[in-house]
Parts: sequence; C-alpha cells; structure tokens
Amino acid sequence: QDLIVPIPRFHVTEAEDQDPENVVLRPRLVIYMDYNATTPLEPEVIEAISEALQEAWGNPSSNYLAGAKAKAIINESRENVARMIGGKAEDIIFTSGGTEANNLVLHTAMEHFRKSRSSAKGVEGSRNGYDGLPHIITSNVEHDSVKLVAEHLQSEAKADVTFVPVSKVTGRVEVEDVVAAVQSNTCLISIMLANNETGVIMPVQEICSRVKSLNKQRQHVRILLHTDAAQALGKIPVDVGELGVDYLTIVGHKFYAPRIGALYVDGPGTRTPLHPMLFGGGQERNFRPGTENTPMIAGLGKAAKLVASNLSAYESCMRSTKLYLENRLQTVFKNRIHFNSHYPGSDILPNTCNVSILGRTLQGWRVLSHCRKLLASVGAACHSDSGNRPSHILLSCGIPSEVAANALRLSVGRWTTEADVDAVVEDLRETVQLLEEMN
Amino acid sequence: QDLIVPIPRFHVTEAEDQDPENVVLRPRLVIYMDYNATTPLEPEVIEAISEALQEAWGNPSSNYLAGAKAKAIINESRENVARMIGGKAEDIIFTSGGTEANNLVLHTAMEHFRKSRSSAKGVEGSRNGYDGLPHIITSNVEHDSVKLVAEHLQSEAKADVTFVPVSKVTGRVEVEDVVAAVQSNTCLISIMLANNETGVIMPVQEICSRVKSLNKQRQHVRILLHTDAAQALGKIPVDVGELGVDYLTIVGHKFYAPRIGALYVDGPGTRTPLHPMLFGGGQERNFRPGTENTPMIAGLGKAAKLVASNLSAYESCMRSTKLYLENRLQTVFKNRIHFNSHYPGSDILPNTCNVSILGRTLQGWRVLSHCRKLLASVGAACHSDSGNRPSHILLSCGIPSEVAANALRLSVGRWTTEADVDAVVEDLRETVQLLEEMN
Repeated sequence: QDLIVPIPRFHVTEAEDQDPENVVLRPRLVIYMDYNATTPLEPEVIEAISEALQEAWGNPSSNYLAGAKAKAIINESRENVARMIGGKAEDIIFTSGGTEANNLVLHTAMEHFRKSRSSAKGVEGSRNGYDGLPHIITSNVEHDSVKLVAEHLQSEAKADVTFVPVSKVTGRVEVEDVVAAVQSNTCLISIMLANNETGVIMPVQEICSRVKSLNKQRQHVRILLHTDAAQALGKIPVDVGELGVDYLTIVGHKFYAPRIGALYVDGPGTRTPLHPMLFGGGQERNFRPGTENTPMIAGLGKAAKLVASNLSAYESCMRSTKLYLENRLQTVFKNRIHFNSHYPGSDILPNTCNVSILGRTLQGWRVLSHCRKLLASVGAACHSDSGNRPSHILLSCGIPSEVAANALRLSVGRWTTEADVDAVVEDLRETVQLLEEMN
Repeated sequence: QDLIVPIPRFHVTEAEDQDPENVVLRPRLVIYMDYNATTPLEPEVIEAISEALQEAWGNPSSNYLAGAKAKAIINESRENVARMIGGKAEDIIFTSGGTEANNLVLHTAMEHFRKSRSSAKGVEGSRNGYDGLPHIITSNVEHDSVKLVAEHLQSEAKADVTFVPVSKVTGRVEVEDVVAAVQSNTCLISIMLANNETGVIMPVQEICSRVKSLNKQRQHVRILLHTDAAQALGKIPVDVGELGVDYLTIVGHKFYAPRIGALYVDGPGTRTPLHPMLFGGGQERNFRPGTENTPMIAGLGKAAKLVASNLSAYESCMRSTKLYLENRLQTVFKNRIHFNSHYPGSDILPNTCNVSILGRTLQGWRVLSHCRKLLASVGAACHSDSGNRPSHILLSCGIPSEVAANALRLSVGRWTTEADVDAVVEDLRETVQLLEEMN
C-alpha cells in the first residue's frame, strides 16, 4: 500500500521520489482527498498554459499577429468555457477568480438598484419600493466571497441582507423560504449551486423559476439571480439555460484548471446588467479591464473542454469511489460513523463525503494532524486557521456540535482509486486507535 | 538579415519554423519592438511557473505540507518583489494586475476621505475642509486604469479630479503645478513614474517630498501619494524609500513576468490606509482575498529577482540599443525624423524611442501596416483600436497634430540587438519608399 499513487499521471522524478525530506514530492506516501479545496492541473491543462506562456505572450490588444494569436486563444477558451455551462461565448467574462466574480455580482446588484431607482424617480417620483436600501437574499452557508461582501454592505448600511437559513433536515435552502424572504427592494438572490462542506446541491433551478414569475408580476426593481457554481462544475451537469440564472460563477482551480475564473452573465449589459468594479484599458468589453492573462485563460479553456467532454465519466467515477469510501468507513467504524453529508431528499455532490468518527478525542483537526497518509481538511481551506471550532456550516445544517467538531471533509477526485480509499481508511483506523490509546 | 532572431532564447521548433502559414511562430521574420506593450517571459520565469503548476498546486491556505509549500513559494516571491523596489515583504499585496492595483488605490483614497471625514466630524463637526467631495490630483497622460477611474468618480459626482497637464516643453508634469493643484479636500496624488508612450520620467520624488511637507502642516485629510511604476520597473532603478510614495503599482508583464501584478503599500493598514475592493477568504491579509495564483506569483518573484540582480546591465544594454536606433534613424531619414521622446531637461526610459517620419502619407498606422518585419505600435496597446487619430498623450506633450499622426512607438527589450535595429531601419526605409511611390 506504500505504492499507491494518489494523483495518477502526476510526475515525480526518481530523484524527487528518493528525497526523504520532501513529503509533498512523495505522493506515494500521501493521499490527497481535499479536491474541494483545490485540484491539481490536468497534464493537458499544464500543456496549454505552457504553450501560451511560450508562444502567445503578445498583448492581445496589439494589432499585429502576435496579438491576434493571443486573442484567438482567448476566444477559443471563451467558447469552451461557455460550452461547459451551455452558454454563449459572449456571455463569459474572465475574472481573476471566483472571489472577484462573486464580488462583481453583488457590486452589480447595488448599482442595478441605484440605477433602477434613478429611472423610476425620473418617471413617477420615489414610488415603487425604492425608498429603502437595496435588499439582497442569500443563504447562511455561502462561501465567504458572497457572505462577507453581503455582511460588509450591511455593516456599512448600504444594503439590507436576508441570510436564509438552510433546513436542518435537508441541508438545503428551501425554495419557499427564499420566496418568502422577497421584499419590494430585493434586487439580488445569490444561492450557491452546491455547498463546499456538505456537498448539498441547492434547488437553484426551482428558485429561479419561482422568482422569474415574481419578476413578471412585480413593478419594483427586477430581482437578479446568481449562483456560485464553484463546487458544482466538473462534478455534476451545470446548464445555465436549465438553471435559469442571470449570473453563474466559474472557478478554475476546482475543476483541474488554473487559479482564474469567469462570470457567466446572460447578455451582459443587454438582457442582464453588469457594472464593472474596475476601469482601465477596455479589455473584456470594459466589463473587466486589465491585460488578459492569456496562459491562464488558455488553461481554463482546456479544462472546461475536458469537463464538457468527460463529465459523465468523471461524475460516475467519483460517485463510485465515494460510495466505496462510505462503505469502507461504515464497515471499519460501524456505529461510530456519522455522515454529515447525508440529508433525506437532498442530492449531494458525487465526490464529497463529510464524516465524523464519534469519540471524545477524535476532533477532526486532531485526527488529520495524526494521519500519516491522508491529506484532507475539516472544512473550507480559507477557514483552516479557525482551529478546533466546529464548522458553522455543519451547525447550520443541524449537525450537533460534538459531532461537527469531529468532522472530516473527504473530497475525492477524478483519479482517486479504491486502493487510495483502502489506504485512507486504514490510516484513519490506525490514527483513531492511536488517539484513543493516548488518552 | 533574414536570420536575425529578434527574441533571443526563444524557442522555435524546426517544424514550427518551417510552417509558412504561421508568421508569429517565425520570429526570424519579424522583429518585436513593442516591449512597452508587453514582454515575453524569461525562460527562468517560465520554469518557475511550470514548476509551481506541477508541484505547488496545493491550496496555500491548507494546513498540510502541500499548502505550506505553496505558501512558501508565495512568501519567497513576496520577498523578491519587495527587494526589487527596496521595500519590505509585508508591504507587497499581490493583485491580478496593474489595472486592479491602480483601481485599488483610487478606491482606498475615497474610503480614506470618507473615514477621515467621519472621525473629524466626531470631534469637531464638519470643519477642516471635509464639506465637499474628495479631491484627486493626477496628470493628463496617465494610463486608462487611473484616468478612467478618476473620470468615472467625477462623472458619478463622487470625487473632484484635477488632471494636471504635462508641460508642452518638458513632457513632464511639473512639481509646482501639482502642488498648486492641492486643495483642502485633496486626498490622493497619483502620478505615473514613466510615461508609456514618450518614456518621460516624472518627478515623483520631488512631488512626494513637497507634499509630505504639506501633509505635516495641514489639518485636513492626509494626501496619499501613489505612483504607477508599470513602465519604469525593469528599466530604471525604482526605490520606494527614495521616491517617498505611499503606494506603487507593479505590473509583471512589463518586466518579463506573467500577467499579474502587485501593489506596494507603505505599511498597509497601519502607516498607510488600504481598503479592500473585494471580500472573501482572507488571503493577502484580507486586503485582496481570493485563492492565490501560486504559479503566476512564482513567476513574478523570479522576474523580480532577475531585475534586482541585473537591472544595470539591462538598462545600459537597452540604452545603447536605443541610441543606436536613434542614430540609424537620423542617418537614414535625416531631417525627416522627429523624435517625440526628446524633451529638454527630461529623463527618458532607456528603451523608448517615439519617432515620427515626416511625410503626408506616413501616418504611424499606415507605416506599421506596411512594414514587413517590424512589430511595434503607435501608442498604448489598449488604444490599438483608436485607428488613425493622433495620440492624445503626444498632443498633450506639445507634439503638433500632423507630427503626432505619424508617430511610431519603438520600444526595445533586453535582448534587442544592433542587427535587429539595422533590419528595422531598413524595413522602415523600404516601407517609406513604397508608401511614397504609391502616392
């Protein structure tokens, strides 16, 4: 079992492999199950990036061929990213990542409200529910790049925000709760497509469908619809048309692409407002200026193409690996296992297994720090410094505090094998035994 | 002369070289003199990026070693970027590029004014010049990522802006003009370190020194000092301590680094305010959240290290190549040459030669589109669609309209050779002859 290669097709030279100091470079000794934190890049993606670094370094705005070549690569990537989500190329705006894309949506909603109010005032005074602050609806389990923006707007008295709590039964934000939260000033609903810790898939399609009916009836500001698809892309089918969203956030490094992102906007500036946060040299049709990061965009496009071509294989592979993992855990730990990613009636990402091994000394951080092979986390990577406090996401989903404290978020990847799972479960068994003997 | 390699150490496979279709991949046939638009990446930089893509893909926030390795690379880069400009590592905030860095400074200035006003009001009512809008001073030759932000704030009635005109004699913004523009509400002065079209180096050090004295005397809001060093870095010595700036914008792709950037801030959040535009997972100490682009940051650090080590060699090499270019142009075109980058008493970037060949049919865009080898531009790449209008930068510097219309911005690189120059001048000679015969 020391010969397990956790990240197949990754490249360790013999010298690196024999370097006893460098655990990172010795993947045979570690098994990565933190694919919800970030993913390695597919070799084809690295190749696309490397090619562009060498051959497409021209400024995409330059008139000569070196610029045109870079521009062509960017446009091809735009096509591929659009195809992955069933959208049109002209609806894709490249950003520096998911954080920027999410911030851009909330910024746009604020400007959208302001402009709607201005034009309403022009026509018929300050009627039609434009008297108060713009109102934003989101859930209480969003990523910080939505949650903290909303809290910031709230604390600066720039917006009212309703954080709709997820159901403690289903782990989902419920459609009726979202619809019930709508006010006359509501200008944005932002609900993630799948949660990063529990893997719960949210009913975004139903929410969009209901709110679109509302939009038709109401005379107030149009309610914009956003979903952060960071954790869903590359794992489940995502189609902007079916979902009915106005905006969808795309994050490269969750689907074996580099650290950039994109925002899908259904007709930016025409059918759907998009108000830039940055001003500059006019790139991305002025919606997101700045000289384009051609190589990273090339990599994003290649990774999107892989997803578009292979999603169902990736999905079924991850799903069967996860099921095998859950079965093995159940077999080894029996009634001491509690799955924090099982909710009646809710669909879960095919790769995400959030699990607690019950026991007084088996807090998640303690288990992970004693594991010899397993690389995983207790929750979102950007909360890795929150120490041993139980995840607020799990508490929101109704997981009791003492169970949540023991949570391990195990997220498998495309190439995780059953042998990897066996090694991880054995690692956990030994670790649990060790921790219990220590006490 | 067909054997000239314009971008030494760049890599064309034999197959690529023999592909008659692909002009971009046949550098032997073209000579790049548009290094102010963008630069190729140094091979060492590509290597650093490639290594990180393969081996440091972990989430830098993850607690295990894969995360720690990424974090270590980022910190090393931060050291190297800081060293390049004589600053401290903790003063470097990585951004997606120069556009974001510049926008962040103007955003910060607005918040800085707002917060200064709030605390002043708390103490002594709305005295001390906080009654009107925040006031920003900049020049009339800035990059669009400063200019358009300022214009946007102005048009939204969020700020007053003074665009101090550069002198039509020196091409510089003059210290006295900047100081004379200061008002009680002035909260930011943003002056580029070197102009991208003329190469004129601005008196940023003198401006900072004068304004710091003013800051000591005045009871009003502190005036923050920013310089966009996009075009200066890698070409002339840049030291934040000597300059005395509070903020300095760093743009990778102008000094053979990838398409990201950084903002230097003299003590972000302590000595100097820095108010984030984005909210999210806490990266970059919350000043600029978003999962870090480790490979690009690795490349930026490597390129910065090369600049720190080799700047004087790069500088003298570019300067002598440019002088050779100017001499050759003068010799061939005699009194038909007008240099738009020669200003009495002004220092010019060592690599920038802005030149007009006088003649009724010799507009810059027309000459470039007929050149067989030369790749250059008539001005900023992001204005490449402005067609045949003369550059507003050159007009601002006092260049007559009919001369400005013929401008070619020739910017040489570290590895441009005298043979490249010979080929370019010959190309220009033939092109001019052709264009004049055509008419």
